[in-house]
Amino acid sequence: MKTVLIVHAHPEPASLTRQLVELSVHTLEQQGHEVLQSDLYGMSWKAVFDGLDFSYRVDPGYLSFVAESGHAYANGHQAPDVAAEQQKVLASDAVIFQFPLWWYGMPAIMKGWFDRVWALGLAYGYKGAGNTYRYGDGAFKGKRAMLCVAVGGPAQDYAPRGINGPLEQLLFPITHGALYFPGFDVLPSFATYGSTRMTSQDVDAAKQAWQERLVHLFDDAPIPFRRQNGGDYPDGHVLADHVAVGQSGFLAHIADTASAANP
Amino acid sequence: MKTVLIVHAHPEPASLTRQLVELSVHTLEQQGHEVLQSDLYGMSWKAVFDGLDFSYRVDPGYLSFVAESGHAYANGHQAPDVAAEQQKVLASDAVIFQFPLWWYGMPAIMKGWFDRVWALGLAYGYKGAGNTYRYGDGAFKGKRAMLCVAVGGPAQDYAPRGINGPLEQLLFPITHGALYFPGFDVLPSFATYGSTRMTSQDVDAAKQAWQERLVHLFDDAPIPFRRQNGGDYPDGHVLADHVAVGQSGFLAHIADTASAANP
Repeated sequence: MKTVLIVHAHPEPASLTRQLVELSVHTLEQQGHEVLQSDLYGMSWKAVFDGLDFSYRVDPGYLSFVAESGHAYANGHQAPDVAAEQQKVLASDAVIFQFPLWWYGMPAIMKGWFDRVWALGLAYGYKGAGNTYRYGDGAFKGKRAMLCVAVGGPAQDYAPRGINGPLEQLLFPITHGALYFPGFDVLPSFATYGSTRMTSQDVDAAKQAWQERLVHLFDDAPIPFRRQNGGDYPDGHVLADHVAVGQSGFLAHIADTASAANP
Repeated sequence: MKTVLIVHAHPEPASLTRQLVELSVHTLEQQGHEVLQSDLYGMSWKAVFDGLDFSYRVDPGYLSFVAESGHAYANGHQAPDVAAEQQKVLASDAVIFQFPLWWYGMPAIMKGWFDRVWALGLAYGYKGAGNTYRYGDGAFKGKRAMLCVAVGGPAQDYAPRGINGPLEQLLFPITHGALYFPGFDVLPSFATYGSTRMTSQDVDAAKQAWQERLVHLFDDAPIPFRRQNGGDYPDGHVLADHVAVGQSGFLAHIADTASAANP
């Protein structure tokens, strides 16, 4: 029995996103897992990271998010909603994020979940050691994460040479930047395309495909992002010359680019 | 004399982001331009796109953001703050976005500006013609856009083989996806690195570099993204075989990848 947190962001209960959330809950519970939820719209989640997050200020005269986040986290002065979300993540073996793709990213309410919950000392600057623990190490090491995205446009626009750019590259700031950074093993993203124009048969097919992914949540292979501390980044910043020779950009940070290019 | 809109997102008036905003206003006004501002924190901008944006609902029983956005835009039922921002963009010759990079993207409050302001019929589905006018065509054709980003980490982490991925690729969902899509000519992004640990000399150097970019706002060459309707995408979705041969991913959508890889 594992614990899975589902963080989701669509206010319409009948939306495809929410239908797939229901399927997640049902499928995972049927497998004997415990399911936690963060229904960001339902919770009226505070999206905006601002001074109100810090009831006690290290420096009342200058708002540094980094300094105040670190101090609040270390001293138990965090906003209660932020601390509660951190506890849910820490209690989970996997976290699934389900959202519609808006302008090639998360809805603001979910971006604000990361902005606020990913505190200094937890998601970055872990153990007060700067960038020592990141990209494969960190507070969430050993946990899994996966995105489930409802995309409005057609799949061909997100193909390797599609006009929008490949979906997994558009999501790289989230999968690699926001999830692998603090230590999660990140599974290839799941997406539905043409999500606003689906027939009921399309929806059924999407549900079947998503259920298949859910069943393998704990045994599918994660995206083979390169570990900062695994030898590929001798200085902790830049790839060694002998690694991914001749490559640059996102794909150079994935050990097996063949599988990554076609997730 | 041109009109420039600056959309910015940092609540601390003494932050680097806000210092560079002040410099933008000063520099552009000195050049004789009119400057408009959207101080998202100062305006208490509503970040979350939800049913409250639609006072009149096409379908009160099912919230489709696409359908309601299009109907509200076409019939003058939009939220007043959304309509006001659209008017500011339409009145401008250039729009500059200034923000700190949080988890490899915009702060939620700015993401919510795009989520809400980029309505169906304006920023997508222009002229009610589906995807006919996008990526080089659209409501904002003839206008320029530029990002000015305060990055916390060191520049080497964002180098072509740096561990975070190249900054301009991390920003591609914004520059290409949110700005070029509705027709803007997008200039290479401006960034400061190590922004939380700068000496006053570093700040002076950053200001000088930013001022230099501002002075050339209307004559610097934009990123040469490929136009959807320029012949490179015969079906409007996927690159023609003879274009960017052997390439896939973001860089295939930039005509001159040499300059794009090192902006």
